[in-house]
Amino acid sequence: MTIEESIKNIRPLDGEAVRAAQERQDGLLKPQGSLGELEALSVRIAGITGQVKNTLSRKVHFLFGSDHGICEEGVSGSPQYFTRVLMELYSGDGRCGINVLCRRAGADLRLYDLGVKGLSPRPGIDSSHKLMPQGTANFAKTCAMPPETARAAVELGIQLVEEVKDEGYQVIGAGEVGMGNTAPAAACIMAALDRPDPELVGRGGGLTDVAFANKKRVIVEALKLHHPSPDAPLEILSCVGGLDIAAMTGVFLGAAACRLPVIIDGAISIAAALLASRLAPGAKDFMIASHRSAEPAYAAAAEAMGLVPLFTLGMRLGEGTGCPLAMQLVDDALAVMNEMGSFSEVSLESGYREKLKA
Amino acid sequence: MTIEESIKNIRPLDGEAVRAAQERQDGLLKPQGSLGELEALSVRIAGITGQVKNTLSRKVHFLFGSDHGICEEGVSGSPQYFTRVLMELYSGDGRCGINVLCRRAGADLRLYDLGVKGLSPRPGIDSSHKLMPQGTANFAKTCAMPPETARAAVELGIQLVEEVKDEGYQVIGAGEVGMGNTAPAAACIMAALDRPDPELVGRGGGLTDVAFANKKRVIVEALKLHHPSPDAPLEILSCVGGLDIAAMTGVFLGAAACRLPVIIDGAISIAAALLASRLAPGAKDFMIASHRSAEPAYAAAAEAMGLVPLFTLGMRLGEGTGCPLAMQLVDDALAVMNEMGSFSEVSLESGYREKLKA
Repeated sequence: MTIEESIKNIRPLDGEAVRAAQERQDGLLKPQGSLGELEALSVRIAGITGQVKNTLSRKVHFLFGSDHGICEEGVSGSPQYFTRVLMELYSGDGRCGINVLCRRAGADLRLYDLGVKGLSPRPGIDSSHKLMPQGTANFAKTCAMPPETARAAVELGIQLVEEVKDEGYQVIGAGEVGMGNTAPAAACIMAALDRPDPELVGRGGGLTDVAFANKKRVIVEALKLHHPSPDAPLEILSCVGGLDIAAMTGVFLGAAACRLPVIIDGAISIAAALLASRLAPGAKDFMIASHRSAEPAYAAAAEAMGLVPLFTLGMRLGEGTGCPLAMQLVDDALAVMNEMGSFSEVSLESGYREKLKA
Repeated sequence: MTIEESIKNIRPLDGEAVRAAQERQDGLLKPQGSLGELEALSVRIAGITGQVKNTLSRKVHFLFGSDHGICEEGVSGSPQYFTRVLMELYSGDGRCGINVLCRRAGADLRLYDLGVKGLSPRPGIDSSHKLMPQGTANFAKTCAMPPETARAAVELGIQLVEEVKDEGYQVIGAGEVGMGNTAPAAACIMAALDRPDPELVGRGGGLTDVAFANKKRVIVEALKLHHPSPDAPLEILSCVGGLDIAAMTGVFLGAAACRLPVIIDGAISIAAALLASRLAPGAKDFMIASHRSAEPAYAAAAEAMGLVPLFTLGMRLGEGTGCPLAMQLVDDALAVMNEMGSFSEVSLESGYREKLKA
């Protein structure tokens, strides 16, 4: 699907299924609403699939690797070749954080090299979509990527969702690796919210105070240089985005078009989610926010979308590590819906039912 | 063990294991601290067991049922016989919230009738410790229970932990059912913190504004009537406690004495945790707070103990439903510690190691 086709294919949640799911949830053996977000999740997933009871046993997590030219400006606390080293480690014997947590959740991990400097083709990494072999350009000086590359990356994300949908996957996670990528993430969020406020720039990993002040300056000045329109997500991606953010934007769009629930990880992931929701506001209904990132732009994006993350665990690893954790909580929520008894099913002495529901 | 024996048996976390676990955690393939609470959990559990790597596959959840005489004052939105009905349901075909979530976590559920009015012995419920067959007395008028009953309930909790430790269980959850029990929970927390502030009283389930105002008045006046000493947890339990809270106090003490991690659920569970930590401050190190209850007394107790719950999911069901959710997150944390590779194990080109850790 093209971007335009996917936008056209996004339909609202199935109102009938939402109503039926809420009715079942309200009839389960507990006070109404007493399982909080677990109830809300199960009802929303019913609206996504069109069925009251759901099992999302086939899980997939996309991890997009890409490098970011903005690293030239000293916005990253780590050297850029770590992107390559980490991609090599993920594809090795499965001993990084995302490998371990995907195994725990029963999620299959798919690795994509969209533009990791110096990363050679190797088993376990799909490098057939290496859109910019040297990563993006330095957006302090020029556009991060040509408009047609931004489009290609978004449409790749859509395509990958279509493929996993065909393979029978039922829930998707979206994460990334790329040194310095909290910078384009903050820039995209600030551009989309039309808030070029340096307070929205976070420290990312391991910056000194001086380097952090420089990062704020670099991003605010880049937004002045390009001034992308807040209403033009593709322009934002082209001016100050990243290949990872662009591909994830496509994943969030594609998930909504394919009616699959999709999990947001941290600050970079939610930048893509925000851009997707600007392209198609209805895409939000298919998104589940996992953990609350400490990056200030995360909170701004979550608030703008009305999303409340499921947990605050002080995580800042990236890789999409919040996604497999949230997938397990989704399974808990679905088990409540599927397995709890309802007042109408259990034999209760007369008069109990209405009172227990209150 | 008696209360005094269990207090004497509580030893601090194993400092050597904590250091070794932190060292391993810091050497794993991620920036130090980037998995936040998952890292902290895995290190604390090492301090509990004395081993760096742990698997807590044998899980048990205690659910204590008891009735509360304070219901006579109209502090509960539900009729008291619901305690009995719910206990019957838990022990039936396993279709209540706690049944479903314990199955998901692989936790065995143990039900105890400590004082549920009208509940007859039935399979699946241990009623051999029915300390007060009609539940506690109305603490607006008299002490909730005699001091020796408070002691017996606490020591029952300790004994149950000793038994499950002998059976090979490795992690414990503690929850309850009992109409009106947010009232004694708030009263215990307010007494232990010496804060007879009506703002600490929560609405519990389904109270009208008028009934809520009455609940605040009843609790504040009961604290004036009994004025238990903040430093005397058994006196607090006897004056304004509940059998559920007393037994869970014993579970928290016993878990620390037996060196087992124990999960706190919501407001009633944390009242017991607070009293246990007053009896033995070192007990806190063995406690894991699962979800942040909306009851205001919960926040006060958590803050006093320096505990930060793992998630805020808007749950208010009780039954200990937060415990099996937290057990799964503990398993995630342990998988990170056990399965992630360390910088010293993977073959990295020279110079990578120190830089990747930063």
